Amino acid sequence: MSPAAPILRTDALVVGAGPVGLFQAFQLGLLGLSVQIVDALPQAGGQCVELYADKPILDIPGIVESSGRDLTDRLLAQLAPLAPGWHLGQEVTRLARRDDGRFDAACADGTAFDAGAVFICAGVGAFQPRRLKAPGLDGLEGRHLHYHPGTAPAALARFAGQRVLVIGGDEAALLRAAALAERDDLPAVQLMHRRDVLQADAALLARIDALRQAGRIVFHAAQLAAARQDEAGRLLQVDIALPDGSARTLDLDTLVVCQGLSPRLGPIADWGLAMDRKLLVVDPATFETSVPGIHAAGDIAGYPGKRKLILCGFHEATLAAHAAHERLRPDERGPLLYTSSSALLQRRLGRIS
Amino acid sequence: MSPAAPILRTDALVVGAGPVGLFQAFQLGLLGLSVQIVDALPQAGGQCVELYADKPILDIPGIVESSGRDLTDRLLAQLAPLAPGWHLGQEVTRLARRDDGRFDAACADGTAFDAGAVFICAGVGAFQPRRLKAPGLDGLEGRHLHYHPGTAPAALARFAGQRVLVIGGDEAALLRAAALAERDDLPAVQLMHRRDVLQADAALLARIDALRQAGRIVFHAAQLAAARQDEAGRLLQVDIALPDGSARTLDLDTLVVCQGLSPRLGPIADWGLAMDRKLLVVDPATFETSVPGIHAAGDIAGYPGKRKLILCGFHEATLAAHAAHERLRPDERGPLLYTSSSALLQRRLGRIS
Repeated sequence: MSPAAPILRTDALVVGAGPVGLFQAFQLGLLGLSVQIVDALPQAGGQCVELYADKPILDIPGIVESSGRDLTDRLLAQLAPLAPGWHLGQEVTRLARRDDGRFDAACADGTAFDAGAVFICAGVGAFQPRRLKAPGLDGLEGRHLHYHPGTAPAALARFAGQRVLVIGGDEAALLRAAALAERDDLPAVQLMHRRDVLQADAALLARIDALRQAGRIVFHAAQLAAARQDEAGRLLQVDIALPDGSARTLDLDTLVVCQGLSPRLGPIADWGLAMDRKLLVVDPATFETSVPGIHAAGDIAGYPGKRKLILCGFHEATLAAHAAHERLRPDERGPLLYTSSSALLQRRLGRIS
Repeated sequence: MSPAAPILRTDALVVGAGPVGLFQAFQLGLLGLSVQIVDALPQAGGQCVELYADKPILDIPGIVESSGRDLTDRLLAQLAPLAPGWHLGQEVTRLARRDDGRFDAACADGTAFDAGAVFICAGVGAFQPRRLKAPGLDGLEGRHLHYHPGTAPAALARFAGQRVLVIGGDEAALLRAAALAERDDLPAVQLMHRRDVLQADAALLARIDALRQAGRIVFHAAQLAAARQDEAGRLLQVDIALPDGSARTLDLDTLVVCQGLSPRLGPIADWGLAMDRKLLVVDPATFETSVPGIHAAGDIAGYPGKRKLILCGFHEATLAAHAAHERLRPDERGPLLYTSSSALLQRRLGRIS
């Protein structure tokens, strides 16, 4: 989106699309507020999908067993009828409170918001890819160097016809290598990891093995030594260093790098919000931070008794939504409505017309 | 249980088996604490089952749609591996804090507890059946007069061979009338309601119609005028008054009365706990009431920002469990454990051995 794009006016801006951010958006939408969601990752789910996508979660009330991925899918399905606006792969880099109590916010890509309230559900922070370090990489990112690109077919289509080197040895890297190698619109995919041991579940490892045997994936146990560009800044080649001390040169168009994600608080640390032991200090009645109109819920929010549990984040997001609704729509104040009996809520959720 | 029964020593006594009480027991058990649960109703589920068993619940995080009955079943399944002690159809009538900080508690039937902490998850109070009023009923209750008896086959077996009159016209009454009429060990069931209009879903109404046509249910639009007992206190007959002013006499052994349940706070009001606008005042860090060691969660608990939502009760129960665990097991203090990674928690839930 260009800097001249229209400013998105919204009741609520939700920062973070992990489970708590998704339920934050649900509760806001259920109260009739419009919602825009931003997350640094290319997909919803946050830590839940990045760190324990397939591990069992046994303490979500009423869900005997789920996984990070399953819980995310459930929350997305619950949220779907409320149709929030989505801004994935984006980070809110600027946030300023205006004199009228509303907020100006913007993402790095220029997307701008005029928001009535802000909800920080950023968990342990925005997940940032661990950067590749080697001479010759400057200026390649976004064109010939991609960190953790999305895995949807539409996101992979941009690699058509390219000679791709995937760097990394865990599930994120192997998933992308396999998805690219299974396409018929690009040559064999190179996969490089510093060790000969790849880490993923048995099914994915078997998929990689089959693709290696079919010649669709060429594996290198090696590390990147240097990259070379032409005068126009196009990637030409990379030199890789093998464990035996020898070197090889690969002709390439594109690097896909999945060396892990690590969370960092990022711009949130600069918004002037009171913090205590790395958590945003909130009032447990409203989950408002030290800045009126900015709420926080989930692992990033701190208050007496706080336990970093997903189910607690759901409650925090709920009270935050109700507090913001009271402030933004004072005329709608009234008794609490229930989904079991309120036609208004059932209509908002698409259950009745 | 006789008054001389042994005293049940437990870490936690949970008062109320609605959704919040069930999840309270789950969180306590997950932390390794022993749990006894008491509820005035003959089955788990509380308001959720009594008031909106089949209405949609759309705002439980990660559960796109459930009903009161479905949510209760899910929570029971989640709780099952932790195997709490159950005391259904009982009310905690006595609760006293001892000098050592533990609690003496007892039910009306004489069941006695020695509990380390108490968790009041009593919702809107204990559900009490609306009483039948007519001359001649004194002393029949529990022998020839039963309010909202359980509907499980084992609970209905006690009516074998008896001439039963079911009084009431809503789902609770019709369910019991149908279940009794479908048994082959008792004569036709009489059903009486003050009006000719019965209230239940179409399937249950059709079931009742079929049983009336088969002669297994005999319906009376009438009201109870009086009951007659023999010298031994056995029920002999009731007189019923018909809308046209006439009267009839029915020979009977047993009255089953389902004229609705209404909640009342009951003995809880006498335990010296600070209240504000009919809610127990709690600290939102620990969900402890004004008496140390007595916690409250769910609709009965009040604090700034409180919303009476089931999902908020789940959070309240969780922080209450953690606070009690810290007090009862100071030696186990340590970092928060997660079900996705802790073998201890997975073992408690029967996932690994």
